[in-house]
Amino acid sequence: MDAEQLRENAHKMVDFIADYYKNIETFPVLSQVEPGYLRDLLPHSAPDQPESLQNILDDIQAKILPGVTHWQSPNYFAYFPSNSSVAGFLGEMLSAGINMVGFSWITSPAATELEMIVLDWLAKLLKLPDHFLSTGQGGGVIQGTASEAVLVVLLAARDKVLRITGKDALGKLVVYCSDQTHSALQKACQIAGIHPGNCRVLKTESCNDYSLSPETFEQAISTDVASGLIPLLLCATVGTTSSTAVDPLLELGKITKMKGIWLHVDAAYAGSACVCPEFRHYIDGVEEADSFNMNAHKWFLTNFDCSALWVKDRSALIHSLSTNPEFLKNKASQENLVVDYKDWQIPLGRRFRSLKLWMVLRLYGLENLQSYIRNHIQLAATFESFVTEDPRFEVVAPRKFALVCFRLLPPSHKDEDCSNQLNRDLLDAVNATGKAFVSHTALSGRYVVRFAIGAPLTEESHIIEAWKIFQEVATVLLKSLKMNHTRPLN
Amino acid sequence: MDAEQLRENAHKMVDFIADYYKNIETFPVLSQVEPGYLRDLLPHSAPDQPESLQNILDDIQAKILPGVTHWQSPNYFAYFPSNSSVAGFLGEMLSAGINMVGFSWITSPAATELEMIVLDWLAKLLKLPDHFLSTGQGGGVIQGTASEAVLVVLLAARDKVLRITGKDALGKLVVYCSDQTHSALQKACQIAGIHPGNCRVLKTESCNDYSLSPETFEQAISTDVASGLIPLLLCATVGTTSSTAVDPLLELGKITKMKGIWLHVDAAYAGSACVCPEFRHYIDGVEEADSFNMNAHKWFLTNFDCSALWVKDRSALIHSLSTNPEFLKNKASQENLVVDYKDWQIPLGRRFRSLKLWMVLRLYGLENLQSYIRNHIQLAATFESFVTEDPRFEVVAPRKFALVCFRLLPPSHKDEDCSNQLNRDLLDAVNATGKAFVSHTALSGRYVVRFAIGAPLTEESHIIEAWKIFQEVATVLLKSLKMNHTRPLN
Repeated sequence: MDAEQLRENAHKMVDFIADYYKNIETFPVLSQVEPGYLRDLLPHSAPDQPESLQNILDDIQAKILPGVTHWQSPNYFAYFPSNSSVAGFLGEMLSAGINMVGFSWITSPAATELEMIVLDWLAKLLKLPDHFLSTGQGGGVIQGTASEAVLVVLLAARDKVLRITGKDALGKLVVYCSDQTHSALQKACQIAGIHPGNCRVLKTESCNDYSLSPETFEQAISTDVASGLIPLLLCATVGTTSSTAVDPLLELGKITKMKGIWLHVDAAYAGSACVCPEFRHYIDGVEEADSFNMNAHKWFLTNFDCSALWVKDRSALIHSLSTNPEFLKNKASQENLVVDYKDWQIPLGRRFRSLKLWMVLRLYGLENLQSYIRNHIQLAATFESFVTEDPRFEVVAPRKFALVCFRLLPPSHKDEDCSNQLNRDLLDAVNATGKAFVSHTALSGRYVVRFAIGAPLTEESHIIEAWKIFQEVATVLLKSLKMNHTRPLN
Repeated sequence: MDAEQLRENAHKMVDFIADYYKNIETFPVLSQVEPGYLRDLLPHSAPDQPESLQNILDDIQAKILPGVTHWQSPNYFAYFPSNSSVAGFLGEMLSAGINMVGFSWITSPAATELEMIVLDWLAKLLKLPDHFLSTGQGGGVIQGTASEAVLVVLLAARDKVLRITGKDALGKLVVYCSDQTHSALQKACQIAGIHPGNCRVLKTESCNDYSLSPETFEQAISTDVASGLIPLLLCATVGTTSSTAVDPLLELGKITKMKGIWLHVDAAYAGSACVCPEFRHYIDGVEEADSFNMNAHKWFLTNFDCSALWVKDRSALIHSLSTNPEFLKNKASQENLVVDYKDWQIPLGRRFRSLKLWMVLRLYGLENLQSYIRNHIQLAATFESFVTEDPRFEVVAPRKFALVCFRLLPPSHKDEDCSNQLNRDLLDAVNATGKAFVSHTALSGRYVVRFAIGAPLTEESHIIEAWKIFQEVATVLLKSLKMNHTRPLN
């Protein structure tokens, strides 16, 4: 690690990456390679002797980039976005440059303290209640992903109850969610040893826009309590993955408060929008939550990974996740003068991730960040109007943020199987063009295309172009369906 | 994310980081700030309007760097190293630039396939058995840290047994380790719901160099089986954190094989050394292991985080950790044509971490990597000879790799309390100079200084200088101890 060698080679890499962004629209958005494509292109073992950087950059261009699905392409509309930005990128660079491992305060005080401060900043932008600030009993922490966030709060909630009931009550703990809750919760339950029969996946209805009904929740609690089970945690979502549904936090929070159930709010996607006053109401009720999570790496210009989690009672987290081996002991920790984030997360080691979030907030400023979000939501409204205006399509769930859920209607409305296959074909055909990448979900048993706007480079021209592709592919598909109306599609 | 704006600003950041490395020896290695130092230096909330990059770089220089503990300093000898290198840094840059989220093969085939290939490369360098290669039933995966590695294999082992016994046997599962095993295992047990009474921490002895005795292990199993408990997993360590002890894999592996116990080998630190033929014998017996882990981010020039985990039976991992929500379904996954690494780890999202490991292997080549390791081990041998030659000090545990465990002897050998306080004072005084950073451990109740060599910039001159500091501080401390020999030290 010679400084001048670093300088020389890193400048080359900067140009390589800048050129990648310059040319990003020339690549198919969804990689078109076949499974196993790379193995024959690379040697079977590592070289004995060093190779040149130029060799490697050539290989990246020729062999790696064709296998990349370009999340930063302006024509990327799949899943949810995963934003890259100049500020986020610079923050990642600096973090990799300093390359410290901030498990305890002492291993780099700035890493811990900047994280506390920046998460307080972000909490204030979101108007989270004061008890989530690091100056009270709670505080914020950067997790890698929302999956880790929900796991650590589940563990905190689990152990808080088990300290009272005794460990043997583990089999009685019940976790609640809706059928729209992210699969990460089920995985967390499985990891934490929650009995598989005690994960209540409550049904949502299209008439409620796929949000969790407080009555359904209350009923489930009553049944469980009557059976001698112990309600533990509810994971409510603001902006579900399938359709950005919003669970009613105010009503749900009243119930969890009354029943002493941990309320976790997963706003991984939609949390970013709540820095705009006009969207803040979606998290009204967060005051009753025990924990709140949003992914700055999704739609907030902070490169992956950066999942912000706030808890009301940090001691529950620490109680559940702390270790204190001799080799990590130090005066500041022993005297309880500092936060040691190792006790707020699964791993021991951790990167200096607050740097990039800090740089995003400072290099852009709140007003620009709000405009950024509003622009995407406006683009989504425009795209929604395209769908609405074409009678061959229908919008399937109400649009709240920057995701439009829609489908192509089959010539006859009666056959759902045919409709599902038609939309599967639509999606595959659009993705095969390489000009746009979209993904899908199922809502009420129907196969639905998800068009998620949120890549930083996406402009109106890109969604106009994408819609044209949908229309063209639809025309072809419907024509072929008409010609083969007696034969099944696959 | 404008390409030219990225280019311009990233070039500035490259120079900032290169200058940081140029001047790295001018900083105190261990940050000398007081708890809470940063809060008053920064505003209480994020700015509304954007700030300039220069402003932020100035703040990093003036406010952040003083709070950084410089893990890349050549005078860093604490904990274990966390290597940064030109290749590792470039790989991180590129990964942050592409900024994709590789949870499933389809979300960037190259990310999954390069990871499989590069972990096969590394497995071959370590001469791991073929069943750990991705071409068989096993395979490698990059976890964030060794903590996550041991957690996922514990979950795989747990669920494999519970599928046979039924979920209710959870309370009967027993996990084995030694009192030198990393605390990450205890944390994993706690997370996985292993009964706290069923985590067997087996005592090691200084006469065995703090390695786990197969007889002790076998006895513990017999006792547990006689009590109706179910032995689940043994975590054996190659290079323990306290003293780089090596558990005897060959003998332990015979026992685990016979008893049907999952054998996990944690070689987080010392695994890197095993790419040298003369150190490979330390992992002899790995053939019987179910899983093996080494941290490329420690001592293998790959920037944090990059923890390589191999498993013999990937289906156990996938069985335990897979989710399959509709919105992630795709043809390649459904048809079982591909690996989806989301099912091998706790989080859903994942970065393109194989890039940096690939670049390290190619830009340096095996021979340079071997020389790199050998050089550190040679430096440690030199430092060890310094300690041995000064009769005021003693080496406390045999040196195997690049860690020297030693202590300052008190004037009279009789008082352990006095000796411990003396060495605590020694450590604090050395760290307070800012000229070196070391950490400590306890071995057989004695406070021991750990001098871990492994920062890429460390040369012989640095360890000579560090030893001089130890000698000077020792002289002062012993003198003051003599003057105050009737008063206790603290």
